[in-house]
Amino acid sequence: MKPVKVGICGLGTVGGGTFNVLTRNADEIARRAGRPIIVEQIGARRDNPDCDITGVSRTHDIFEVARNPEIDVLVELIGGYDVAYELVMEAIANGKHVVTANKALIAVHGNEIFRAAAEKGVMVAFEAAVAGGIPVIKSLREGLGANRIQWLAGIINGTGNFILSAMRDEGRSFDDVLAEAQALGYAEADPTFDIEGIDAAHKLTILASIAFGVPLQFDKAYTEGISRITAEDIEQADNLGYVIKHLGITRATGKGLELRVHPTLIPKERLLANVHGVKNAIEVMGDAVGPTLYYGAGAGAEPTASAVVADLLDVARDISTDHRYRVPYLAFSEVNQHGDTLPIMPMEDIETACYLRLQAVDRPGVLARVATILAEQGISIEAIIQKEATEGELVPIILLTHRARELHMNEAIRQLEALVDVAGSVVRIRVEDLDDNA
Amino acid sequence: MKPVKVGICGLGTVGGGTFNVLTRNADEIARRAGRPIIVEQIGARRDNPDCDITGVSRTHDIFEVARNPEIDVLVELIGGYDVAYELVMEAIANGKHVVTANKALIAVHGNEIFRAAAEKGVMVAFEAAVAGGIPVIKSLREGLGANRIQWLAGIINGTGNFILSAMRDEGRSFDDVLAEAQALGYAEADPTFDIEGIDAAHKLTILASIAFGVPLQFDKAYTEGISRITAEDIEQADNLGYVIKHLGITRATGKGLELRVHPTLIPKERLLANVHGVKNAIEVMGDAVGPTLYYGAGAGAEPTASAVVADLLDVARDISTDHRYRVPYLAFSEVNQHGDTLPIMPMEDIETACYLRLQAVDRPGVLARVATILAEQGISIEAIIQKEATEGELVPIILLTHRARELHMNEAIRQLEALVDVAGSVVRIRVEDLDDNA
Repeated sequence: MKPVKVGICGLGTVGGGTFNVLTRNADEIARRAGRPIIVEQIGARRDNPDCDITGVSRTHDIFEVARNPEIDVLVELIGGYDVAYELVMEAIANGKHVVTANKALIAVHGNEIFRAAAEKGVMVAFEAAVAGGIPVIKSLREGLGANRIQWLAGIINGTGNFILSAMRDEGRSFDDVLAEAQALGYAEADPTFDIEGIDAAHKLTILASIAFGVPLQFDKAYTEGISRITAEDIEQADNLGYVIKHLGITRATGKGLELRVHPTLIPKERLLANVHGVKNAIEVMGDAVGPTLYYGAGAGAEPTASAVVADLLDVARDISTDHRYRVPYLAFSEVNQHGDTLPIMPMEDIETACYLRLQAVDRPGVLARVATILAEQGISIEAIIQKEATEGELVPIILLTHRARELHMNEAIRQLEALVDVAGSVVRIRVEDLDDNA
Repeated sequence: MKPVKVGICGLGTVGGGTFNVLTRNADEIARRAGRPIIVEQIGARRDNPDCDITGVSRTHDIFEVARNPEIDVLVELIGGYDVAYELVMEAIANGKHVVTANKALIAVHGNEIFRAAAEKGVMVAFEAAVAGGIPVIKSLREGLGANRIQWLAGIINGTGNFILSAMRDEGRSFDDVLAEAQALGYAEADPTFDIEGIDAAHKLTILASIAFGVPLQFDKAYTEGISRITAEDIEQADNLGYVIKHLGITRATGKGLELRVHPTLIPKERLLANVHGVKNAIEVMGDAVGPTLYYGAGAGAEPTASAVVADLLDVARDISTDHRYRVPYLAFSEVNQHGDTLPIMPMEDIETACYLRLQAVDRPGVLARVATILAEQGISIEAIIQKEATEGELVPIILLTHRARELHMNEAIRQLEALVDVAGSVVRIRVEDLDDNA
């Protein structure tokens, strides 16, 4: 059968990995696809020392690949928003299918890209954009297609999980572990996207659209990073039976969709609490299937290439299909249908339990004043830990609350921080039990 | 768009669940499929009290469904080998696509069924046959399609996992927990298929074919049940840092394919060791992606229905496609290609570490005689636990060995059992470290 001809743009970590996997496993892939998948052209300015591209046509102008009439599928692996967007739109305009690992591109420009692709009748596949090699998009979009999805929660940034895992295992500080992660190549020189949750919010935005059939709405995601988590918070959480993970959470409620990334206490015995290091995992709750979980490598050359090539297999199979019969880009044939009934909720309307840590002067009545503020906001307390200290000195007070609305918790924290007995700001980390029926 | 018309045969637990999910989530499913999926006819002798089928055509003769010209897809949920086989072949002969949850049918008759289906150009989908609602077939067949699969190991029988979990958590005996599982409806009145590993071997046979592109060869699977596991073995394994799970394991080696179901010690910290109760999980090792894991409900009405309906979604999308472009039934377009180079290995050629427990008379020199027998078979010892006892009494000796060939271990066990100092038979449970690079 006629081979599928691929043009790879970008020959960095993922581009090199994709080329190597396509080459090394060519026979196996052809048997699965029913036809060979061959790299026809590579568009890249720099070489990749891990990658021998001898014999493959190579250009420094990636837009040449997008216009090459021999190419069936353009694989966009250059990253970033702007040039990648132009490249993908140019490829679509030229009738090429597109495979991309670019989460920022899909989260921010996906709605326009899918519109253009639908008009041209081409596929845009992006399994590698979320959780690297874990086939979570396929599982959610196709494997769980019978379900109304109720919620999903995921560890979808390996750098953040590596940092939190090492802080917990070794009692080290955030800055110390971040420096190690940068030395190991797990974190970028500018780690903002990873540690402030922006990368996770890109991925969560994509997962939410596929789970609930709503348009991509990255600008409405609530995003909070892990840079303020201390070794003490991790230890206190442990005392309470919890582990701190940086989760992306989306949930359908009667009022709309929750869409939020923040550090979260989860019970130690949950599988998600036992996902360590740079690994990723996503737990999905469906109304028919109940909870399912998908675990694996969320980044790296060949794990990400695994997802890119799986998308190429889908393209190879569907390439001769009338595009109306294909799996819809975002799982649902009309993603806007629930745009009105499932608005993204403002963070203030979301209810969670919280872990609070504050530094207070150890004076009679402090605890009563703290408890009164919480009670006035309708927030009830599940547990309090107060370390012993000499009277008059600063002592940490740890509180675990029951579920409360974010709006009320914000007000309580504002009032707590205004108390003369309380020094500095209150640490707040939200808690998710991940109960089957939550 | 024209609806897909489904005929459901069998209205038991899974049949009722499938009807209910298709009905309750009809809108969501139509949005995902791009067309409605409607139940046109039900073939069932008995009613299901959980299921209101008012308004749906119903027949007591399931073969009428297979011949009904209005039906596009026959859903086989009657179970068993014989009638199910005839029904599915009749449906295929009449040009109908088939969706089934029947692992025994696929493991035993799959090769013939797929041959007939390929000739007629129809789909046969069976996601529900393995691990209930977990989309592991789709993940392995499509999501990991870029990879050479190296091994997979799974907890693929919920009944067995429920029994082992309860024995471990509550220190109870096998017979005691089995009786409870039967009372709860987790185990059949005749629990042989579950506890002797036959059900797991059916599922493993299917997974191995999809992972490695070999024909279904259920008759070559090695199968060992959990009925001989004692509370003591579970406790001793715990002391050594292990949990006992009933695993299905398949692995590509230079000599062929391992294909085996047996109780297995696995390290406590592995995710698989933390899969409790009736839940299932499968860990898959691919050469590009590394380890990934899929977790969820392996049985039950709606979890299984979730997989049946996902298959119906695939059929609905592919129904107008030239069948040469579809995902192959067993993942590879030519499943026989490796039939010769990847034979299923005889159990005697497989190498594993082992946990051995024997009852010995506490006499000087016993341990030396035991160690000599192992040494003569080239088996080295990683750990020994010998409980204190009064001299001359029976005392358990626990041994953890390094990896050794099954053939040599069998001979060592034969010689150990022949020792006058050793009473009764030697308990042998294989050990798998599930290391990333194993």
